[in-house]
Parts: sequence; C-alpha cells; structure tokens
Amino acid sequence: MADYTKMWSELGLDLEGHDALLSVLGGAYTDIFLSQKNRPEGMKYFDFVMSEVHGLRIQELMDAKAQGRKVIGSYCVFVPEELILAVDGVSVGLCAGAEFNFEGAETLLPRNTCSLIKSAFGFKLGKVCPYLEASDVVVGENTCDGKKKSYEMLAPLVKDLYVMDMPQMKSAAGKALLKEEYRRFVAKLEEVSGKKITVDSLKKAVEVVNAKRKAVKRLAELRAADPSPISGLDALLVNQVFFYDDPIRFTDSVHKLCDELEERVKQGAGVSAKGTTRLIVSGCPMAVPNWKLPMLIESSDVVIVGEESCVGERGTRWLTEFKGGTVEEIIDSITERYFNIDCAIFTPNPSRVEYVKEMTEKLKAQGVIHYSLQFCQPYIMESSPVEKELEKSGMPVLRLETDYSQEDAGQLKTRIEAFVERLKKK
Amino acid sequence: MADYTKMWSELGLDLEGHDALLSVLGGAYTDIFLSQKNRPEGMKYFDFVMSEVHGLRIQELMDAKAQGRKVIGSYCVFVPEELILAVDGVSVGLCAGAEFNFEGAETLLPRNTCSLIKSAFGFKLGKVCPYLEASDVVVGENTCDGKKKSYEMLAPLVKDLYVMDMPQMKSAAGKALLKEEYRRFVAKLEEVSGKKITVDSLKKAVEVVNAKRKAVKRLAELRAADPSPISGLDALLVNQVFFYDDPIRFTDSVHKLCDELEERVKQGAGVSAKGTTRLIVSGCPMAVPNWKLPMLIESSDVVIVGEESCVGERGTRWLTEFKGGTVEEIIDSITERYFNIDCAIFTPNPSRVEYVKEMTEKLKAQGVIHYSLQFCQPYIMESSPVEKELEKSGMPVLRLETDYSQEDAGQLKTRIEAFVERLKKK
Repeated sequence: MADYTKMWSELGLDLEGHDALLSVLGGAYTDIFLSQKNRPEGMKYFDFVMSEVHGLRIQELMDAKAQGRKVIGSYCVFVPEELILAVDGVSVGLCAGAEFNFEGAETLLPRNTCSLIKSAFGFKLGKVCPYLEASDVVVGENTCDGKKKSYEMLAPLVKDLYVMDMPQMKSAAGKALLKEEYRRFVAKLEEVSGKKITVDSLKKAVEVVNAKRKAVKRLAELRAADPSPISGLDALLVNQVFFYDDPIRFTDSVHKLCDELEERVKQGAGVSAKGTTRLIVSGCPMAVPNWKLPMLIESSDVVIVGEESCVGERGTRWLTEFKGGTVEEIIDSITERYFNIDCAIFTPNPSRVEYVKEMTEKLKAQGVIHYSLQFCQPYIMESSPVEKELEKSGMPVLRLETDYSQEDAGQLKTRIEAFVERLKKK
Repeated sequence: MADYTKMWSELGLDLEGHDALLSVLGGAYTDIFLSQKNRPEGMKYFDFVMSEVHGLRIQELMDAKAQGRKVIGSYCVFVPEELILAVDGVSVGLCAGAEFNFEGAETLLPRNTCSLIKSAFGFKLGKVCPYLEASDVVVGENTCDGKKKSYEMLAPLVKDLYVMDMPQMKSAAGKALLKEEYRRFVAKLEEVSGKKITVDSLKKAVEVVNAKRKAVKRLAELRAADPSPISGLDALLVNQVFFYDDPIRFTDSVHKLCDELEERVKQGAGVSAKGTTRLIVSGCPMAVPNWKLPMLIESSDVVIVGEESCVGERGTRWLTEFKGGTVEEIIDSITERYFNIDCAIFTPNPSRVEYVKEMTEKLKAQGVIHYSLQFCQPYIMESSPVEKELEKSGMPVLRLETDYSQEDAGQLKTRIEAFVERLKKK
C-alpha cells in the first residue's frame, strides 16, 4: 500500500489509532481469508480491494470530491443507492463491523446497545473511519430503536446527519411514508449536490445498481452446486465489498469471479469435498470486518452456501423494475423495490422465514444458523418464531446470539460443532 | 371482597395462581400504601378500588358485556379512549406491572426483554389477568421494538389482537400515519361494537376523557405546595387507577380528593414536613402494581411531587381541543392531541426534557430521578441526553435502570440516599 499518511491526516484521522486498527485488520484478513484452501483466482481482486480499503478507495473518494461529486455515507440497505448515483454522488457503507473504542462509545451509548451501533460510534469517536470522515452527508434511518435513538447522539459528531424515517408495517400508509421519505431524500441530494435528478441520470443509476445486484445474484446461485465453488467467507466478503467499491468495477469483478466459479462447477471442483455439510446463515447483517461467526462455522468442516441478511440476499435479491418513464414513476418503482425488504423491523414479517425456507431448498442446505447481535431486539424477537417455523418444516436451526468480542468464540464453536454433529446423524 | 370464584372460573383464570397473586398484591398494598402517615381521607376510595381491582370492577365489565358493550384492553397511552367510549365501549389498561410467571414469559420472549412486556406475557400465560381475559379486543401498538415484535407472539394467545401502527417522527407524514391509524381503529371499533360513531357520541366521549384529565391535572398542580398535600405513591396510584376505573366515577373521586387536598394546602398541612426534599420521577411508565421505585424513594425522607411518565403527566397533560364539529374534524382534533405525546419512541424528542424542566420549576423540585426499565432502549438511550440537559441547567439527576425484581432494592436504596444527601448539601 502506498503512503496515505497525508490524506489520512487531512481527513482528521487519529493516525496512531488508525495504524493500530489497520494492523489488526491486516492480520485478521491474512489468518481468516488468505489461509483458506482452494480459493478462486477471482478473489484476488477482492483481496486487493481489502488491502486498499482505507487507501486507494479513499483516494478515489477524495478525487471524486475534488471533481465536485458528493460522498454519501449510510448504515442501511434502505438507503437507495440509485438516488445517490443519480446526482452523480458516491454511495459508501460506513464502518460498523469491528470492536474498536467501545469504551469511548459507551460514554454516549448504553452498555446494552448492539455491537454494530457501538462500532459506528467507536470509529467516529476514535477517528479511524476514513469513509465517515470523507462523507459529505451521513444518512441515518429509523429502523430499530437502537439506531433511531443513537442518531440523535451521532448528529452533533458529524458534519451533516440526515435522518430518514421508516415505516414499521407493510401497509398502504407504510408504503406512502417510505415514498415520501425517498422524495425528501431526493430533495436533500439535489440540494447538497447542486444537481437535478433527470430521467436519464436516474435510469442509468438504476441500471448500474441493478447490474451490481444481478452479479451477486449470479454468485448466490452458483453456490447451489455441491461442492460449493466458493467458501461462505469469500462470498460474504464480496457482499461486504458491495457497499463501498466502485459499482461498475465491482460488477465486472464479480462476473469474472462467477465465470471462474461456473467453470469449477462444470468440473465438479469446489472449496471443500462434495458432501460437506451445507448451512445457511440468517439474521443480522455482518458489516466489514465482522467475520467472526462464518470463520467459526467454516472451520468446523462446514460450508456456508447462503446469507439471509442485509449483507447478503435480503439486501440484494430484488431488482428495481421500471414501471414508468418519468422521474416520479421511477421513484415509485424504487419505493416498490425497497418496500419488499423483509427486515425484522417490520411487523409482521412473514416473508422472511418463507425466503429462508426457499433458500434452504434451492441451495440444498441441511441446516440454518440464526445469527443475532446481542441486544438487537428485532432479530432476537424474530429468531424464536423463525426457528419454530423452520423446525416444523424439518429444517434444523441453531440460534446464536453474540457480539463483536472474541470472548465467547470457544463456546460458540462448541455449539456449532454439536449442531453439525446433529445434522450428520440425520 | 365478595366471592368472585365463579366469575374468575368462567373467565378461564387459573384460580390457584390468581389467589397467590392477589395475596401477594394485598400484602404489598398494605405494607406500601396503608402504612403511610397523614394520608388524605379521599384515598379511601382508591384503597377500595384496589381491594376490588379483580373483583367488583371485573363484575362491572362482565355486566357491561352482558348489556352488549365491548371491553377494549390496551397497553399504551396512544390508544385513544375517546374512540372506545364513542362506541359505548369500556377502555381498560392491561396488567403489565408485576413480576409474575416470567419463566413462562421467557419460553416465548428473549431474556433481554423489559419487565413490562414480560409481565404482560406472564399474566397471559399464567391466566391471572381478568382484564385481559374479559377483553373483546386487545390493542397493541408499534411503539418500541420490544412491544412491536412481541405482539406477533401475543396474537395467537388472545381472542382478537388488533395492532395499531405508530409514527416515529413528528413530521407531517408521521401525523398523517397516526390519523390514518385512528381512522382504521374507528372502523375496527364500529365493526366489533356494531355501533356507528356519531358527532354526539364522540363529543360526549371527548368530554368524559377531558374531564378525567382535568381532574388529574388539578391533582398534579396541588402537589406544587410545600408541604405536598399527598405522597408520590398515592398520586401515582390515582394515575394508575386512571386506566381501568369507570371514568365518571373516577373523575368525581379525584375531585373529592382534590377538595380535601386544597383544604390541606390552605392549612399548610401535608404528608411530610415542610422543606422535605422534593423530587420528580421521569421515564418509563409504572403500571399497577409497579410501586417499587417510588416506595424506595419515599422511604428515604423524600416526597415525589410529579411523574413525567405515561402513567403521569405525559399521559394526561394534553386535552383534546375541538377544532370542528364533524366526526372527521373531531378525529383530527384527537390526532392532534395524541401526536403531542413526547414518548421516547419519537426522534428527536426535545419537548420531553423541556417539560421535565418546566415540571421541576412549577413543582419546586430539587432533583430528578430518571427511571428506565432494563432493556427499554428508547428511554435508556434518551436518559443520558436528558441528564446532560438537566444538569446543564443546574438540576441534579440520578439515572436508575431496574426491573420488577426486588433483587437490586438495597443497591437502589443506597444510590437514592446518596443522591438525596447530595441535594441536601446544595
């Protein structure tokens, strides 16, 4: 990696803390990703992206800003990337996947707050997230209580926090509220960028984002093969990079990877032996560099073949389908698309468990691990009904609740291994 | 109390569990309430209500049902009593204030769920809440994540669970959503009651509920006197009885109590000596029989002079003001009224802390105890900014987080006493 010290300084990063973070992350990446066997060649691109995640990519953001483009940071798949691209903005997911400076975060947040939220605050207060510091606007959203209320405390810490309201039910009124919020977001984007959304810019943006989604859908489908041509860790990484890479380059790189995986499937080659136990992971999002659970799972002679998660199929499985040609009509189509997302913040949320079932069938999974972040009430509350429903249809489920610390790794590993034993005896 | 065994049996109560509950409650009531010194005579009515809380009042509900009236149970101050009364229904608050059968509740709910929600499930699964069993419709509302998601699990356990959606922001779209939800609730009430809401029935209902609010407002204002003419425990009890007594009889009884308190104030008489330390309690609602914290506070040579809570001023301080004479216009006025409520589920929620300040001034309080139920994310998240804001204006704050168990009573008592010492030294 080149020397980015000057750029990081100018962004106001705490260089010492940031160096420490990068060093830990680099070590973890080597241990967890580079040590895997039978990795596809196509993952080299993603290894490179990761090695430059706080370097070259940030340089690109700074170059974009120098050209007058705006960087819009966000924490949630309900923030439409299409709208950001339509004002020639750059959409980036913000850091919330590592246990960094939780002591600092806990000076503002209650102890009983999920790790994802604590992480966002830890990075901000510790000044180690260049994405956050480079963002012209940070978009919050009223999804869960924790995020909704914590944005009130984040507001004074960032330049321009914009909060998007969210519906809680899939009703006509709920959809109307979301549509209204997306219109309000368009106005905000037009104001900060000084650019008007046009039919052309919006259509092109929808095409770019749809193409990205189609690429990861292609990847998702290839994992139905036995042996799976790619590890769950690598597939998760692709889904994580989805949030901050340049969208067109990302799409190309995923297709190149898929070409290779297709070849593997034809040849019956994979990351592990045919017949290896196959699991789906369902639940809370895993933001970079939250690789804790998949690492524990895949080191237990298991391959993860799908993620029912915002960083996974829940975030990407719907395309925006044009239903009309005006800007208003395209915004309506975008609203339709996002209103499908079956996040546990909705009540009731029956389509989520139905889709987990569908995934287990098409990906030939033998079990489901339900992953909840501690204190994430929506997913924890939903985990018990999801488990009951899946077990009723004969699908074994292991419910795990954890945080970003490594303290419970041994305990989780034991439970995962016992679950895998149960599946093998079936 | 008369023998209500037959009625309780017919309601499907678990008689053994219910007897045990009543015995514990009766004992607690005697210890906490009847042992107080200098109680107003007017509290005798409320003592009687409490002694018949599962008896005579339930008999009244059954008599109302026999006459074709519907009993509508709810858990939240966002459910408009006006609308229920306008179809000649009976509005009752449902049991959620005691630690009963939490083992049962935890078979459905995550351990990290607040006591209020666990209590509602414990009472239902233990079959000891005659209000719940007598309800023709149980109304849930999407306030916090915990309640929102737990209603999905309550639905199969009760006859007719009706869930009301809630806004999360005080925006035009938020108000529109609430208005729409109240209209939908009107349709539901008209359907189950077989009665149409008319201008007359709605006006009368608004007047009845406003009168009830005016009565408790009168009570709240009398507590500005030093010495306070009534204890915080007794005032809280009145605010708790607000939720399930006959509204007209309740209003009369509160006014009788207030007449007596006015006389006390004139004579300079009170429940404790002039100059006793005066506190406001702000935060989560205290449903009957949750008297734990006020009991600990008032046994520390302190008088509580106000509750900023849903069971307190937050629930009652606004009247519904007629702005037009049609049913639609009155529903608009009702929406306006309820949309004021500054519950921590809203983001941002600045008027709440402003009102706490106002209360401390008009009630001449020397400090504020912020009360959060453990795992109640909205109030816990809001407690730190509330504390900072109040301390900035010179008002000392003690933040407490607890549940319904008695396990931490000693620890809380120590912290309260230390806080009171701090106030006395000022």
